Amino acid sequence: MYALIMAGGSGTRLWPYSREARPKQFLGFLSERTMLQEACQRIASLIPDDQIFVVISETYTDVVRQQIPQVPAANIIGEPEGHGTAPCIGLSALYLRRLDPEAVMAVLTADHYIEKADELRHALGAAAQVAEEGHLVTLGIQPDRPATGYGYIERGEKLARVNGHDVYQVEKFTEKPDLVTAQAFVESGRYYWNSGMFIWKVSTIWREFEKLMPQFYTQLMEIDAALGTAEERATLERVWPRVENETIDYGIMERAEDVAVIPVDIGWSDVGSWATLLELLPADGEGNVVVGQHVGLDTTGCLIHGSRRLVTTVGLEGMIVVDTEDALLVCPKERAQEVRDLVEKLKESGREEYL
Amino acid sequence: MYALIMAGGSGTRLWPYSREARPKQFLGFLSERTMLQEACQRIASLIPDDQIFVVISETYTDVVRQQIPQVPAANIIGEPEGHGTAPCIGLSALYLRRLDPEAVMAVLTADHYIEKADELRHALGAAAQVAEEGHLVTLGIQPDRPATGYGYIERGEKLARVNGHDVYQVEKFTEKPDLVTAQAFVESGRYYWNSGMFIWKVSTIWREFEKLMPQFYTQLMEIDAALGTAEERATLERVWPRVENETIDYGIMERAEDVAVIPVDIGWSDVGSWATLLELLPADGEGNVVVGQHVGLDTTGCLIHGSRRLVTTVGLEGMIVVDTEDALLVCPKERAQEVRDLVEKLKESGREEYL
Repeated sequence: MYALIMAGGSGTRLWPYSREARPKQFLGFLSERTMLQEACQRIASLIPDDQIFVVISETYTDVVRQQIPQVPAANIIGEPEGHGTAPCIGLSALYLRRLDPEAVMAVLTADHYIEKADELRHALGAAAQVAEEGHLVTLGIQPDRPATGYGYIERGEKLARVNGHDVYQVEKFTEKPDLVTAQAFVESGRYYWNSGMFIWKVSTIWREFEKLMPQFYTQLMEIDAALGTAEERATLERVWPRVENETIDYGIMERAEDVAVIPVDIGWSDVGSWATLLELLPADGEGNVVVGQHVGLDTTGCLIHGSRRLVTTVGLEGMIVVDTEDALLVCPKERAQEVRDLVEKLKESGREEYL
Repeated sequence: MYALIMAGGSGTRLWPYSREARPKQFLGFLSERTMLQEACQRIASLIPDDQIFVVISETYTDVVRQQIPQVPAANIIGEPEGHGTAPCIGLSALYLRRLDPEAVMAVLTADHYIEKADELRHALGAAAQVAEEGHLVTLGIQPDRPATGYGYIERGEKLARVNGHDVYQVEKFTEKPDLVTAQAFVESGRYYWNSGMFIWKVSTIWREFEKLMPQFYTQLMEIDAALGTAEERATLERVWPRVENETIDYGIMERAEDVAVIPVDIGWSDVGSWATLLELLPADGEGNVVVGQHVGLDTTGCLIHGSRRLVTTVGLEGMIVVDTEDALLVCPKERAQEVRDLVEKLKESGREEYL
């Protein structure tokens, strides 16, 4: 089995710690290791380092090589520019197809938190067996609340039970439902969050690209023809800007006929905002999550993410305070999603130096 | 008339901007000038620079000389250590007595805001006339709310009207009343806040020290005997540590027989906390007072006091955010008084570097 770690994403809602130059996946929020290093570490006992591939915008390939030196430099695939997850996965599949078209590849993410790495590895083993039979497999997260920010997967009939994991036919994908719909989904017990983790044979996904995204498939074949020749770079640079933006969910998963879902209980979180980190990280006796130096009076349920400066607070509840060398954020946890809008405002007001 | 500007005080509640090494009075909160410079500036047209004296802990005499170079260096009186306003004023009176025992001295403060400097000067002129007749005179601030943090002065019979100013006998001083008492005081219309500004002849206050604080008076005479001799410094260093702590209010004003109060409308504020500054400083269209760089979303009625860092906020109302090079404070305006307790906590936890 090969792993393809998608290391894109901007982590905008984790500004000002996460920045364009060092987004979320290259930072350590939850351990000494960065999220990318964690993503590699948690599959290390399942997949050899030289079978781990990482796909990332070209801008960051050097950072990736520095962060995970155990992965061969040639396995770091740089996209000239990002066009969504479908092109990103297609380009990577093209490289893997050269190595072994019948291999199973597990598409994983670098910017999510997974508490139970052993459960993940176990599920990946089962998923690989299902993928061997030609299915597109996705890992579904048991929802614990009616989140409206995720995609949901409805399960259909049960296909099998593999190594203790139930495997279901996927009935339907639904992108970010409204709250009422999300509540109904969660209550039904038949819906899972789309984790963004997929397992399939390289040849299976390759056929799906041919069938469901024919224009992109033609572009991929054009690049494939130039691979390993003097024209490789020029071809990529000519073709890639014309590739259409598409997510793997919409481009392939929602339209493919044979998709299976394996529900997993792996302690998953997308670490989507500072409020999520406040939930994930261990709190002190007053319910505060503190990174750095903090002195508080009557301060409870706060996330204090400092740098070298001393952060002091009086009479705060459920507040997020993030301090960095050049910028500071103060925001109630309920408004943590709006950090994205704040960053947008910074962009609009021309404060590029803070992005 | 001589001015004696008391430049002590710690400004603890304005931490982390105000620090032990550069307390409130040496900082500019409300204008380009520091509060001490403002204190000198506002009496400049009434009292010549060489008749302005400043009394301050010895630690700060150099800072004072740098900030107000127009005042002769010899006019900066350094206390070896602070023992409250009574010893501070007594020591200063000792120096002024050498110059002119029959002169009027106006005791003023360096850490208060006075919006209407012309009104103050006018009142000081009237007060000087009253002081010439041997009264101890205090300026009373018309209270606009039942503040519990100030001393109150109850007026008695009307003594005179001087240059448009009513002059009353003082009936009683009351230190920091409880809220119910303060409300009754304000409603009665007969109470004023103790501004800490006093006007009297040097000889008058000298006699009061002799009468009401005889032990301190003896100590003052001991210092006086050594003044201008080789023993001056040694005497001060021997005597001063044994001087008892006392405020001028309790030591003299509350117990003196002949005290007059002149009510003044000078736009006075003790600039006691960040919440006061939020009220005093001009706000932008969203009711925010911003010093430095701020980008906010749905942020209203906040005080943002930054340094070189960008301060960003989402969904805040009535919050105080003070950012300095090495420390940061976040606190709702209603809790601004507790910054003092926070500083106490810093002291107790041995974080001397932030005091």
